[in-house]
Amino acid sequence: MPRKPDPPEIKPYRDFGDALKSGAPAETVNDLFCRLVEVAYDFLSQAEKSPLTSQVPDKEYFQFKATIGTTKKKTRAVNKALWMEDPAECLAVVKAILTLRQTPIEASRLNSGIYSAVISFLGVIDLLKTGDQKTPGTFFEYVIRHILECFFGITAVTKVPVLNMDQKADLPTDLIYDLGPKKPKFHVPVKTSTRERIIQVWAHQRVLDGVYGTGRFLGIPMILTETKTDQTKGEVTEICLPLQWNLYQMHIAQLWSIGYLDVPQKYVELANQFPIIPVTTMGDFLGPEGPVRKWLEIAEE
Amino acid sequence: MPRKPDPPEIKPYRDFGDALKSGAPAETVNDLFCRLVEVAYDFLSQAEKSPLTSQVPDKEYFQFKATIGTTKKKTRAVNKALWMEDPAECLAVVKAILTLRQTPIEASRLNSGIYSAVISFLGVIDLLKTGDQKTPGTFFEYVIRHILECFFGITAVTKVPVLNMDQKADLPTDLIYDLGPKKPKFHVPVKTSTRERIIQVWAHQRVLDGVYGTGRFLGIPMILTETKTDQTKGEVTEICLPLQWNLYQMHIAQLWSIGYLDVPQKYVELANQFPIIPVTTMGDFLGPEGPVRKWLEIAEE
Repeated sequence: MPRKPDPPEIKPYRDFGDALKSGAPAETVNDLFCRLVEVAYDFLSQAEKSPLTSQVPDKEYFQFKATIGTTKKKTRAVNKALWMEDPAECLAVVKAILTLRQTPIEASRLNSGIYSAVISFLGVIDLLKTGDQKTPGTFFEYVIRHILECFFGITAVTKVPVLNMDQKADLPTDLIYDLGPKKPKFHVPVKTSTRERIIQVWAHQRVLDGVYGTGRFLGIPMILTETKTDQTKGEVTEICLPLQWNLYQMHIAQLWSIGYLDVPQKYVELANQFPIIPVTTMGDFLGPEGPVRKWLEIAEE
Repeated sequence: MPRKPDPPEIKPYRDFGDALKSGAPAETVNDLFCRLVEVAYDFLSQAEKSPLTSQVPDKEYFQFKATIGTTKKKTRAVNKALWMEDPAECLAVVKAILTLRQTPIEASRLNSGIYSAVISFLGVIDLLKTGDQKTPGTFFEYVIRHILECFFGITAVTKVPVLNMDQKADLPTDLIYDLGPKKPKFHVPVKTSTRERIIQVWAHQRVLDGVYGTGRFLGIPMILTETKTDQTKGEVTEICLPLQWNLYQMHIAQLWSIGYLDVPQKYVELANQFPIIPVTTMGDFLGPEGPVRKWLEIAEE
């Protein structure tokens, strides 16, 4: 069955993904990412902003609404404090991704900028597509992959060789950034939200620890949000399972740091109580004082 | 938003599930299960059977097709060798579930009977519901829960207490059958198919091993099939990841036995090569020579 032609707002996403996957220069990929964000903001500027009832303490959410053809459509919840109204402000952050490693951006601005870029296009998908569960996840993975490829200056791989005595084979993995011998190897699962599926992340870390030895791969999952929107009630909740996280960190494997764009407060608290699970915003993680920057400096000495 | 009223073929499913969850006597639950199967077979008798192209060696598949209202609908793939044409044959097996422990049924007949009972109602869902991903999984879990409650003679629980020094809390789990002090405790994840999500099963086993000690809980996942049907091409494939299974069994935790209704040959082979992962049909598992029966006899001495 031939695929239905994409609406014009979706095409920049294909261009961005194709360039990234084909190994185009980071500058080219970043230009296409900027273009995608421009088109998304432009499209959303025609939609109506409508407040949502937030059941999440200290967080406010809204959503975009628009009539597409004859159908009334609504986007997922958007965090009011993180959303940059001005596309120019968001685009300035996206442009700076190219030099993020050399020229750090203040953590909260970096985090808001990436959040706004991501959520703008997810809003477009929510309004223009119905029941598409694949594109949001793929797009978010593209974004994280692009940012980290710029940051680390190397290309991600998605499999590692496994030597199990009888046969040599490849294990498919999430994004892996291998900085080279005696340097960190980052294991980066990417999820738009996790719920009970988060256990997979710890389990994959366990397999890498088992195959290569503990401490070789630093697990740094990158997650968008844990909000859930009841579109009928217009209500936003946040689904957190801190007890399970404790058990996974104690009994399955140790993750090095967990980065969120819209970070749940209940998980931030896990960073300050034993057994420690370091949870931060993605902006803090990649920002001027971020743990990954310090580690890279040590590795480069 | 009030739920749309169920078609009459779906009501027996609600009755069966409600009875099971409310702790009704096994006889009552089993009568409702029989009723559900009768209605499902009756409904499918009006549908057309249509062969599928099987890409799975030595297995043939077909599907049911029917026009519901003005929409042409198709079911998932049905394994020809496992499907019992005659509802009376299937119902005889379902009725015998009540006394399965005392009066074993020959393994392949037991397996075909359970398969046919399950797939008959899943066929009804496929034809009458659109995009319902929840009911098939819930129904299959009801069936396994009912069969094992009859077999073990106890009720399943779905949480275990976790003592982690600072606080006492409950961990939500898959079905757990605790036969009592110094006897096996069975940990039963139930899935209609697994793909890469199977890693969750090993990870949950790892947490139970970590919290309670290795060997306390015997992990026995129960899975329907690993087939995937391309409805456009009319083609059935089977998705197996034996290399990953090896790594999970070596590095995450040890599962005790994995039971399938439509067992993939590639997984059966894992039972005969090191590192051993015992994979059988559900019929073999619960049949006259099944490992669980032997274990129970030892436990009861």
